[in-house]
Amino acid sequence: MKSFFRKNIDAMDGYTPGEQPKRNNLIKLNTNENPYPPSPKVAQILKEISCESLRFYPNPTSDPLRHKLSEIFDLKIENIITGNGSDDILTIILRSFVNENENIVCFDPTYSLYPVLAQIENSNTVTISLTENYKISDNFFDRDFSKICSDIHNKVFFISRPNSPTGNSFCIDKIRKICSVFKGIVVVDEAYVDFAEDTCIKLINEFKNVIITRTLSKSYSLAGIRLGWAMADQVLISGMMKVKDSYNVNQITQKLALAAVTDQQYLKTNIIKVITTRKYLTEKLTELGFTTINSQANFIFTSPPEKNAEDLFKYLRKNNVITRYFPSKKTGEYLRISVGTDKEIQLLIELCKSFLSLR
Amino acid sequence: MKSFFRKNIDAMDGYTPGEQPKRNNLIKLNTNENPYPPSPKVAQILKEISCESLRFYPNPTSDPLRHKLSEIFDLKIENIITGNGSDDILTIILRSFVNENENIVCFDPTYSLYPVLAQIENSNTVTISLTENYKISDNFFDRDFSKICSDIHNKVFFISRPNSPTGNSFCIDKIRKICSVFKGIVVVDEAYVDFAEDTCIKLINEFKNVIITRTLSKSYSLAGIRLGWAMADQVLISGMMKVKDSYNVNQITQKLALAAVTDQQYLKTNIIKVITTRKYLTEKLTELGFTTINSQANFIFTSPPEKNAEDLFKYLRKNNVITRYFPSKKTGEYLRISVGTDKEIQLLIELCKSFLSLR
Repeated sequence: MKSFFRKNIDAMDGYTPGEQPKRNNLIKLNTNENPYPPSPKVAQILKEISCESLRFYPNPTSDPLRHKLSEIFDLKIENIITGNGSDDILTIILRSFVNENENIVCFDPTYSLYPVLAQIENSNTVTISLTENYKISDNFFDRDFSKICSDIHNKVFFISRPNSPTGNSFCIDKIRKICSVFKGIVVVDEAYVDFAEDTCIKLINEFKNVIITRTLSKSYSLAGIRLGWAMADQVLISGMMKVKDSYNVNQITQKLALAAVTDQQYLKTNIIKVITTRKYLTEKLTELGFTTINSQANFIFTSPPEKNAEDLFKYLRKNNVITRYFPSKKTGEYLRISVGTDKEIQLLIELCKSFLSLR
Repeated sequence: MKSFFRKNIDAMDGYTPGEQPKRNNLIKLNTNENPYPPSPKVAQILKEISCESLRFYPNPTSDPLRHKLSEIFDLKIENIITGNGSDDILTIILRSFVNENENIVCFDPTYSLYPVLAQIENSNTVTISLTENYKISDNFFDRDFSKICSDIHNKVFFISRPNSPTGNSFCIDKIRKICSVFKGIVVVDEAYVDFAEDTCIKLINEFKNVIITRTLSKSYSLAGIRLGWAMADQVLISGMMKVKDSYNVNQITQKLALAAVTDQQYLKTNIIKVITTRKYLTEKLTELGFTTINSQANFIFTSPPEKNAEDLFKYLRKNNVITRYFPSKKTGEYLRISVGTDKEIQLLIELCKSFLSLR
């Protein structure tokens, strides 16, 4: 039977998000949610929300929230656009800058949503292999990058920094070089940056073609409310404003997000706790013989001594701990584990020990 | 300077949503929000939402909500997709079914977002003029429609029913004929249908190419939370699921929406109040010499005796009442007025009287 869909939609599988289990007795270390609750200021504002006001449309451009973000990042409000999660922002970027049959560029492995968004737009993905340790290869600029810059069909270069699922960060000077030579838009997806040593935000003052994306889903413990934003030159932001849905961020999310970003002290405390646990987890697994990529995120990417990551994944799942396994040639020897509470991570370590003792 | 944007994005203006004023002393009759609060059951659930749970991602496909909707409409859960407002649903439809340089079809005048969404996708809009009274012309099927059906580039036919900004509804048999002959997708946008005499929902059992869209923004008084949904054959829904953002409906909206649709008794009471006020408003304006299109929505489209709608719009605005004026040849003699509370509508009528006495 004839399909009504565009051919590219029929041909694709769709993105598979991490499992959101219905059972409550599971320890959920699979989608990089924060193990700690949001700021008490968020809880306070949630209590104060008037149901009556929900009959009104939200502010179409999240002005109070963007105003606060502009203060925090020392930018103008015109440098900021908010979205229904940073996935919404990534979608807006594809629809703003990439025509059918043009390309996006990204490293491999990276956030697997980028190629899916390209498929939806009937555009293609050019991938650049990272090294065995998930770094940008030393000869990248001599080889792959020159080719990429010479093809005018390459419109957006997506860089997840820190990278997912690997957790490491790329040297900022390499990012700067990409921004200065690449002819299209460079997106630095900083979903995990609050757990990292540095940020690329200053690049938006140096370059007209750079977009930094952020989210409240990880460091602010607010994956449930869907709030992401992008920061860039105001020419880019004003064009993206035309592409977003008119009321893409609902009223409650705007209010809770404003409360969350206002409480920078709570954010800092939360981040320190997660980084401390990340360090402990990495050390303990190293003692057990695991190989772990140096993480700058709220998760680690780690390979068991015999590289039987899939077996470990299944063993943990059977014992009510969900992690994430990416079964590809480049990632199949590793497991991605979100940093949970100290108690959760202690249990995970014990399970890793008993897994190893089974051999 | 060279632009990074797609040409179609640079060439477009973007959609202008109705004014969301910051001042509280204004009577807001411009964006068809409901004048009454949401169901008390929504208020109750809002109070019970745990801030702690917001650290988790929402259910990606709003399963509990879709389950409830499937009961209400006697459908399967596979016949339903939810969105971040029905604007999100309309965007998903464009991205699912329309390639660059293909066309959407809609009547003129209608919801002005349809052509804007087409522009964003670099596709075009074929418009069909309604009659002077905003009806589908008697000879439509002999003339325009045959042409439209013979062009394979016409992929989606958007029908707002009841229509906006005119408020009237089209005969269901005409819609059925469009569904049976048009080769692409027919979208019946039922944003206002709860205020109307009938619905096209049964058409999704008769045709594989029909999508019905709904929203909580009008009849359920929940414009602030952003929740829309589509109902269609499950082949269409499962393809659209691949195109939506993974977590397009946030956790709180899912819970409040479930509470809202569960309270069908409150919905009915609310609708009766709005329809009663609509009738009163129409009668009073008729007495003053206004010409009003027969409304099936929660707003009226009305023309003052001397057709000086723009003057009346400005006069009302000066007196703190916001309505909506669409300055085009086809709509410029009319004003769109949302049905407010009885008190608000009484004040509006008094202002219309004093406007007329100024002449």
